[in-house]
Amino acid sequence: MRNTDITREQELKKGIRQFLETAPDIYMAGVSVDTVIFGFHNGKLKALLLRFGNTPYFVLPGGYVKKEENLDDAALRLLQERTGLKDIYLEQFYTVGNTSRSKEEVALELTQKMIGKIPHGNWFKQRFVSVCYYALVDDTKVNPVTEVFFTEVKWFDVNKLPKVLYDHDVIIHKALKRLQSDLDEKLVGFNLMGETFTMNELQKLYEAVYQKKFVRTNFQRKMLSLNVLERLEKHYSGKSHKAPYLYRFSESKK
Amino acid sequence: MRNTDITREQELKKGIRQFLETAPDIYMAGVSVDTVIFGFHNGKLKALLLRFGNTPYFVLPGGYVKKEENLDDAALRLLQERTGLKDIYLEQFYTVGNTSRSKEEVALELTQKMIGKIPHGNWFKQRFVSVCYYALVDDTKVNPVTEVFFTEVKWFDVNKLPKVLYDHDVIIHKALKRLQSDLDEKLVGFNLMGETFTMNELQKLYEAVYQKKFVRTNFQRKMLSLNVLERLEKHYSGKSHKAPYLYRFSESKK
Repeated sequence: MRNTDITREQELKKGIRQFLETAPDIYMAGVSVDTVIFGFHNGKLKALLLRFGNTPYFVLPGGYVKKEENLDDAALRLLQERTGLKDIYLEQFYTVGNTSRSKEEVALELTQKMIGKIPHGNWFKQRFVSVCYYALVDDTKVNPVTEVFFTEVKWFDVNKLPKVLYDHDVIIHKALKRLQSDLDEKLVGFNLMGETFTMNELQKLYEAVYQKKFVRTNFQRKMLSLNVLERLEKHYSGKSHKAPYLYRFSESKK
Repeated sequence: MRNTDITREQELKKGIRQFLETAPDIYMAGVSVDTVIFGFHNGKLKALLLRFGNTPYFVLPGGYVKKEENLDDAALRLLQERTGLKDIYLEQFYTVGNTSRSKEEVALELTQKMIGKIPHGNWFKQRFVSVCYYALVDDTKVNPVTEVFFTEVKWFDVNKLPKVLYDHDVIIHKALKRLQSDLDEKLVGFNLMGETFTMNELQKLYEAVYQKKFVRTNFQRKMLSLNVLERLEKHYSGKSHKAPYLYRFSESKK
């Protein structure tokens, strides 16, 4: 380890100790926020996870709620701190609150390895219920921020998730169920698509979210019957008669 | 006031003082539970509310979460304490957490009128986020329990709600939206119906939940296409050829 690395590590540890000391004055006791950040890339639905220290485990981006901060504002702040994103689609969907979630041995052990023993009765050892949100983002705009606790920020195919800590697997599963429901009901899908798209691209999004195949003609008929898509003028070029139509979501339906 | 009334009131006030003293040791800081209890009666969707003391204001049944109790178990316990009901359909749907909700002047004033001044910094004056559930019950089985804080337990048509405290109007509105979504997706309606029902009765439930009218033939076609209803054998009697069919939800779909 070079001297600069040692200095950096010492500074980070100092920062963490300061955080541990001041957190009880700044944050609500017992309430945290976790966010499942979904992105759609190359026909796959992905979730953004953070590597926990230098372990093989990952966790959801999340954190604590300030005493004078609305829940939704806490979720937005934490998301921005982690991804650099503002003005994104965020939806609260569930609060996990089993007592067992705050007693995860592996997580505690790994944390103590990083920052030293946390004494019994410490603020961080109390029980937390976590209010869960999901976010829909354009994955190309994410600017991930790493630090000593979270050494890597990585997109994972929702079908190929790594080992996660706490009940974060339950949270991701519930987020996906809720996204499926909202995709149909609230047409939130446009948050995951570019401005314009082909019917085939839209079908790929639905297939990735619902994790099943649709018949092309049925899918197209259903989508068009919703009256939320606008078909753009075809731009003619050499092979234009074979080029697929482009669509976009009607402004009034967003 | 008779002597027995005075004794009763003194005992209740003593009970409340004891509760105020012991609550911080028993319950989680900052987290409460509120439940919107829906019932379906005479073609109307109703919600169960509690009169706050002797005021014209009502509140949702709710309470605090024990330190060693899962969130869902707290919701079940509180519901049973208030209605006597066990084994009922309960669904978590939202957590309210704006800072303003814990600063409701009217509620604080009314509380202090009942039990005396609550000092600044008291456990009860801290900020609470509230995890919200909705319950679907057979209203004829509810056995309401009143006490000094909640002097009346009453069903209200969801379209004719009384004045409610805190953000409980927001909670009721969100519960109704979620019930609408779940009625279609999870077919939770059977929790609000008797064992068997006519198509007309089912339509009345859907109309009460969605707060709009449906065309009889379209409604019937849609319901039958879901493949969740079982039509019972017609029992012939004098006017039997005009008697409507009875349906029930298929066991396998519940």
